[in-house]
Amino acid sequence: MVHVTKAGHVSKWDIYEIVLEGGPSKGNPFCDIKLEALFSLGKRSSCVSGFYDGNGVYRIRFMPDAEGEWSFKTASPEASLDGIEGVFQCQGARGGNHGPVRVRNTFHFAYEDGTPYIPVGTTCYAWSHQGEEMERQTLETLKTAPFNKLRMCVFPKSYLYNVNEPPFYPFEGTVADGWDYSRFNPAFFGHLEKRIAELGEMGIEVDLILFHPYDRWGFAHMKPEYDDLYLRYIVARLSPYRHIWWSLANEYDFMRNKTPEDWERYGGIVTEYDPYRHLISNHNGLAFYDFDKPWVTHCSIQRVDVYKTSENTDEWRKKWNKPVVIDECAYEGNAEYGWGNITGEEMVRRFWEGFVRGGYVGHGETYMHPEDKIWWAKGGLLYGTSPERIAFLRRVVEEGPAGGLDPLPSDWDLPCAGVEDFYYLFYFGFNQPKSREFRMKPGIRYQVELLDMWNMKVEKLPGSYEGAFRIELPSRMYMAVRMTAMPE
Amino acid sequence: MVHVTKAGHVSKWDIYEIVLEGGPSKGNPFCDIKLEALFSLGKRSSCVSGFYDGNGVYRIRFMPDAEGEWSFKTASPEASLDGIEGVFQCQGARGGNHGPVRVRNTFHFAYEDGTPYIPVGTTCYAWSHQGEEMERQTLETLKTAPFNKLRMCVFPKSYLYNVNEPPFYPFEGTVADGWDYSRFNPAFFGHLEKRIAELGEMGIEVDLILFHPYDRWGFAHMKPEYDDLYLRYIVARLSPYRHIWWSLANEYDFMRNKTPEDWERYGGIVTEYDPYRHLISNHNGLAFYDFDKPWVTHCSIQRVDVYKTSENTDEWRKKWNKPVVIDECAYEGNAEYGWGNITGEEMVRRFWEGFVRGGYVGHGETYMHPEDKIWWAKGGLLYGTSPERIAFLRRVVEEGPAGGLDPLPSDWDLPCAGVEDFYYLFYFGFNQPKSREFRMKPGIRYQVELLDMWNMKVEKLPGSYEGAFRIELPSRMYMAVRMTAMPE
Repeated sequence: MVHVTKAGHVSKWDIYEIVLEGGPSKGNPFCDIKLEALFSLGKRSSCVSGFYDGNGVYRIRFMPDAEGEWSFKTASPEASLDGIEGVFQCQGARGGNHGPVRVRNTFHFAYEDGTPYIPVGTTCYAWSHQGEEMERQTLETLKTAPFNKLRMCVFPKSYLYNVNEPPFYPFEGTVADGWDYSRFNPAFFGHLEKRIAELGEMGIEVDLILFHPYDRWGFAHMKPEYDDLYLRYIVARLSPYRHIWWSLANEYDFMRNKTPEDWERYGGIVTEYDPYRHLISNHNGLAFYDFDKPWVTHCSIQRVDVYKTSENTDEWRKKWNKPVVIDECAYEGNAEYGWGNITGEEMVRRFWEGFVRGGYVGHGETYMHPEDKIWWAKGGLLYGTSPERIAFLRRVVEEGPAGGLDPLPSDWDLPCAGVEDFYYLFYFGFNQPKSREFRMKPGIRYQVELLDMWNMKVEKLPGSYEGAFRIELPSRMYMAVRMTAMPE
Repeated sequence: MVHVTKAGHVSKWDIYEIVLEGGPSKGNPFCDIKLEALFSLGKRSSCVSGFYDGNGVYRIRFMPDAEGEWSFKTASPEASLDGIEGVFQCQGARGGNHGPVRVRNTFHFAYEDGTPYIPVGTTCYAWSHQGEEMERQTLETLKTAPFNKLRMCVFPKSYLYNVNEPPFYPFEGTVADGWDYSRFNPAFFGHLEKRIAELGEMGIEVDLILFHPYDRWGFAHMKPEYDDLYLRYIVARLSPYRHIWWSLANEYDFMRNKTPEDWERYGGIVTEYDPYRHLISNHNGLAFYDFDKPWVTHCSIQRVDVYKTSENTDEWRKKWNKPVVIDECAYEGNAEYGWGNITGEEMVRRFWEGFVRGGYVGHGETYMHPEDKIWWAKGGLLYGTSPERIAFLRRVVEEGPAGGLDPLPSDWDLPCAGVEDFYYLFYFGFNQPKSREFRMKPGIRYQVELLDMWNMKVEKLPGSYEGAFRIELPSRMYMAVRMTAMPE
């Protein structure tokens, strides 16, 4: 006899979970038992997959996106799991829950409730595989960090500076004896989703990397049928988390054993089984994924060059007509290779070069540590000089136009973003002019501010400016000029 | 009766000059009087043009490139200038005179006597139009500066920060009444060649810009017949200076009134009338000149991008198969626009990025000055932080392989120049690694040095290195590693 646990209510965009205990546990329930539920509210309905969580426990999770009385009914070839019904109330969203992030205005993002979302991301690929102490430290660090998006891997990581075994493995089996890819490890997934939930409570979107090539266990080389089983399982478990983004892979093109057809199949499975249409993309090593594919919601980009990447943002916007998110523009640190040894100054410059061209740039940190506790992979502590300046950037962008920063026509040497005749943000990058003449349309009066993007200072110039005028600058790098149209 | 002055001897690659006084001065001798001389040594002979220098004075200049007894004989339709003969001894070159610079090893340069020449240039476009006091100051500054090439214009300059009238004008006439482009001003050219000679005595090659668009006097808009007359005249006067390079124009493509055919005609005239085959190119504003043209000896390049130019040097070498000289990679300073407001650090970084890819990069300085005395145009004083570091660069390159630095196969993030299995210079640019592993061919022992390209320090590491090894680095920008194969 199956014991059913279900709540009577849930808040909008939270997770409503039905727990079925005492279900079939013989054979391989991960593969053999099909379980779905149809959730309905008036004329709306959504069919979601349940999943097996070990020990005869089955779970069905659902994220309602509308208030009111929802009903559900399970369906399964297994009689004990079939036909279970119920109703629950969906109440208004809890404070701070604005729903999943969606693309808005072609190149930007907003939460489903319309609140603008400006992704300011960081990367901690394997932070959830480091054990309780360090994982708590990471969460602690994130509390005061400026980041509202985090790229992280499902699978543990084996790479330069990343040699430790994880506390949990995703499949049944052992390192010595190998894995049964048809049987998931509930403890692994329970831990993963706990960490994901904690990030969500902090307002941090999770850009979840489903596959990656830095592997010594075999997770990068499963048979296609197991890849597909894994994807259906993780989507059933995690898609109800409002703050999930799907990243099919990190450096998909470095997974030489996978074909273009594999990636399209993966994209198809995730989008078919995710009823919430979470953001989804595929992050390159060298060659960009084809962001034109209809299921790809945004460009997820790694640095294309040692010297110049985020300066291409406006071109990429034109090419793909989707939001441009440069997840990896190189990392602040002193790692051995060029992907991980830029200064804080260069990191912040790359951020601004991307934002001022209507895109979004992500952070990572790779300062060498005697025990290889490096933020970019393991989390822990931040040592760099860029996060504080990225917090300043976030404030400046949040104070900007609600529709997002779009590139505006500008001089060859001075990129500019904003909204024509209303808001302009000119960024000088590493150039250090003593002054600059601006020629704005006559008849509009602007408040002009000097922004020092490194020293995090805003200086409001007295009076107002109109038409053609000259602004004195401090002959320093990393300055910006902000102009805001004044009311008549 | 014409009075002839001629010396009995000259040193190799110096100028032998025949002065004919009391020649015809009526009409327009600049146009009307043809005068040539045939110089012969054994079976060699060279026909050179003379030129009119005002007041009935005609001059014929010749730069002998071989020791021995030369003879000459003039030829002119004008009887009084015709058939004048003489002999003179050409002695060994004076110390410091290595002859004209030639292309060597496809991508590099050497003086005609085989001494390597590593161009380390600067730009003072209009320095010879600033009057005695400032011109002397410029020469004084150059005495201790690291530069052995200088880009300068024949004509005065009218541009941002450049509004002063010059002391001399190249043609007869006045600003008010206009110019007779068929009559040259001997005082102008006498002054110009005096300055050129002074640079030569300091070992500075003169990259002489024959046309430029920054003009309010009309010199950029002469009729083709006057352009051609001017070119023949200046080549007759100046080609005997061993250290002349011809730059057809600065920003040729910004001279909208000139056609591609004009530039080819100019190139043809200069190369036809210059018996010494001086280096010659044409410097772009936006679109490169077609450096494939057979008369073009090297690529003369302006920055193609705000962010990345000298990093393309190796590609340009492959494309053009000629030396790559990036005369303008932007200027150190705080001018209003991106062409003139990079830091000293960025200037030096751009130098190294070019040199380590087998090319040559030039300097310029544009710090604002209350009286607009800015080095890049007017000369005077240098204020920047890059020249000292460029001197260090010059020493490092001079200590390198005599055949020049060529790019070697290297990792994606660490350009390297040198000679395989013999000399390697790895440059880290703005990256700041804590260490780097190198994998050299086994069996060759290297002396390894850390070069701090900004602090101008060389640290020789103890012992020797072979095969695969790791080098500790200081987690600072602008470092290089130099490896020199040790004798067996």
